[in-house]
Amino acid sequence: MAKIAVLGYGVVGSGTVEVIEKNKKSLTEKAGQEIEVKYILDLRDFPDSPYKDKFIKDFNIILNDPEISVVVEVIGGIKPSYDFVKSSLLAGKSVVTSNKELVAQKGAELLKIAHEKKVNFFFEASVGGGIPIIRPLHQCLSANRIDEIAGILNGTTNFILTKMIRDNMPFDEALRTAQELGYAERDPSADVNGIDACRKICILASLAFGKHVYPDKIHTEGISAITPEDVEYCESFGGSIKLIGWASREDGGKVAVMVCPAFISEDSQLAGVNDVFNAILVRGDSTGDVVFYGKGAGKLPTASAVVADVVIAVKMSSSSISLYWEDSDQSFIEDEKNITLQSYIRTVNVDKNTVEKLFGEVEYLSRKGAPDNELAFITAALSENEYDKKLSSLGNNVLGRIRVLNY
Amino acid sequence: MAKIAVLGYGVVGSGTVEVIEKNKKSLTEKAGQEIEVKYILDLRDFPDSPYKDKFIKDFNIILNDPEISVVVEVIGGIKPSYDFVKSSLLAGKSVVTSNKELVAQKGAELLKIAHEKKVNFFFEASVGGGIPIIRPLHQCLSANRIDEIAGILNGTTNFILTKMIRDNMPFDEALRTAQELGYAERDPSADVNGIDACRKICILASLAFGKHVYPDKIHTEGISAITPEDVEYCESFGGSIKLIGWASREDGGKVAVMVCPAFISEDSQLAGVNDVFNAILVRGDSTGDVVFYGKGAGKLPTASAVVADVVIAVKMSSSSISLYWEDSDQSFIEDEKNITLQSYIRTVNVDKNTVEKLFGEVEYLSRKGAPDNELAFITAALSENEYDKKLSSLGNNVLGRIRVLNY
Repeated sequence: MAKIAVLGYGVVGSGTVEVIEKNKKSLTEKAGQEIEVKYILDLRDFPDSPYKDKFIKDFNIILNDPEISVVVEVIGGIKPSYDFVKSSLLAGKSVVTSNKELVAQKGAELLKIAHEKKVNFFFEASVGGGIPIIRPLHQCLSANRIDEIAGILNGTTNFILTKMIRDNMPFDEALRTAQELGYAERDPSADVNGIDACRKICILASLAFGKHVYPDKIHTEGISAITPEDVEYCESFGGSIKLIGWASREDGGKVAVMVCPAFISEDSQLAGVNDVFNAILVRGDSTGDVVFYGKGAGKLPTASAVVADVVIAVKMSSSSISLYWEDSDQSFIEDEKNITLQSYIRTVNVDKNTVEKLFGEVEYLSRKGAPDNELAFITAALSENEYDKKLSSLGNNVLGRIRVLNY
Repeated sequence: MAKIAVLGYGVVGSGTVEVIEKNKKSLTEKAGQEIEVKYILDLRDFPDSPYKDKFIKDFNIILNDPEISVVVEVIGGIKPSYDFVKSSLLAGKSVVTSNKELVAQKGAELLKIAHEKKVNFFFEASVGGGIPIIRPLHQCLSANRIDEIAGILNGTTNFILTKMIRDNMPFDEALRTAQELGYAERDPSADVNGIDACRKICILASLAFGKHVYPDKIHTEGISAITPEDVEYCESFGGSIKLIGWASREDGGKVAVMVCPAFISEDSQLAGVNDVFNAILVRGDSTGDVVFYGKGAGKLPTASAVVADVVIAVKMSSSSISLYWEDSDQSFIEDEKNITLQSYIRTVNVDKNTVEKLFGEVEYLSRKGAPDNELAFITAALSENEYDKKLSSLGNNVLGRIRVLNY
């Protein structure tokens, strides 16, 4: 019998306990022994819960109980999660977490401790909810050199963009709809501004390239500046606007990482990913493009990923898996100003002569009802530095710019 | 240093050696030790190969060499692969194979031997080429009850169908094009008749439901009877025709398994899978729909899946993984005559009165230039038994029937 503790009885925590109880028989078979939730740590009281005898408020009970071999951290955030996870690992307990902020901020350090203590630190649920991606990326693609990763990593923004595209809603209205349906929080900034997607691409990039990528070093743009006009132009371009977290191995060994809204061609496997769904494209030198698709959030999908990690942690109790990346000073991250991409640009009161003098040959886009003084076009690939210079020369006449990504 | 032997130096075998050599450094890190190909078994001579010193013709050298811990079987077919794999496992060597025929026919027996000998029998490359599916299905989704699996499992037929749909080619012409491009073999029957897809869905279903599903018990239809008219009607239905291998848990505990061409709605994540690509949809009770997409065949994608298995076999050399299913008398497989689905039916010289008397309310489809005496329609869900009866009453007036699947 393997005894585990669940830290946090919120949405994912209660889902984790529910999935373990519901699938007890098959989990026992797969783990090689029964898995019992011995403690649930939460500051709140749950007097009506069927598990009310398991609730405790003092983490030290868990830490000092040698019977607990696996700790599940589903509190979220850095405090107190980081202390709980670190001391659990130092005490020789494996940890499973769904906490993307923790992994994105502290992954290298926690993996190192796990490695030294010969226990496991697993976080399948931190990216893509119920979509298996961390373990396939690590194990199944181990015979590839990963060249690029690009994902629709945040369901809330994808839902909002889908509403803007399908129902011609402006951003504010689409956000309100998402909030009414419970897909966006009252304070939606972490989703809408790309922060959540940034944490996730940092985790994936760290794993793929073997060195920790910290979120605060990554250029991150959200979707709040996207207009219905941009959506129309993207349609005439033959694509969809998606919020993409991406990381790409460059010639010379550096890695470019960015979170930004992007024009994606309709032919892309990411273009058809709508509503709250997530998809992650992994481009390997041997395998080509592989895409993983599914629900990126939600109680049971995320909990099922947590429980799958628990099963493996229990089964592998005597050995640590090679999931690992090094800490890093970020010198391998390409300066964002050197990142070179095509862009869609929308201008007002700029004539074609000026456009072509600045950008050379461009592809003009059209939309119904555009005023005569509006121009929208796709540029050749330029560095961010070059865009800065050229666009500043146009001043307030630039109404919008969205990058074009080739996934 | 882990020493391995590769049986068969065809497309996948040579790719396997190439991938191991190319990624030596990262593989060593991931496996925890260097991996060396000590022997390559092939009856042919390769005097110009850089690996010419490794070639042998006598399998017993491998079998009797205690240094060989992992045997890679990429010969294909049952003879002599089955004997080689079985005796390798019995000798305490782990086996990695890409051989879907072998796994679909002999999987339960070989897994049992591997289990008893505490070695591993891995076959990630047998389904979906470079797409990670076997291990994610087994490990990452272990906290789910898998309810359904449906996949576009054969790239050749998907290429032919894509040509028929996009370029309005009849089947014969699309097949010839596939052959010219090297996507179809000279004798294309195993692909075109659904036999290859059947082997793959049997492997996935065996894994998902824990009991061996044998191909010869599974209703298998190919794509050679599909006409350009069917393609047009499917378009007016709002979908695409795809060859789908599917398995579904039914009320009462039986499992329905079938390979058939099917109308798939454009909204489905399987509808946008074109050309030689594969995709596999897994429907779990907790995780909802998860889809895995990528190249289902090809030298390097398949070889990279083989090598990833080798890495895990080397790393896990002291323990066997719980990948397993039982043998079975097939009594858990639903009788195909009881499988109940909607269908598209195309008739000639049948009036609407007769159609509605037989099938009740139907949804009529239209196509440009259809003769006046043609009717095409979608029925309500009926069992195969009921279709047999109703369609036989229409005799030769039935021009085609294609099932409608809801994935």
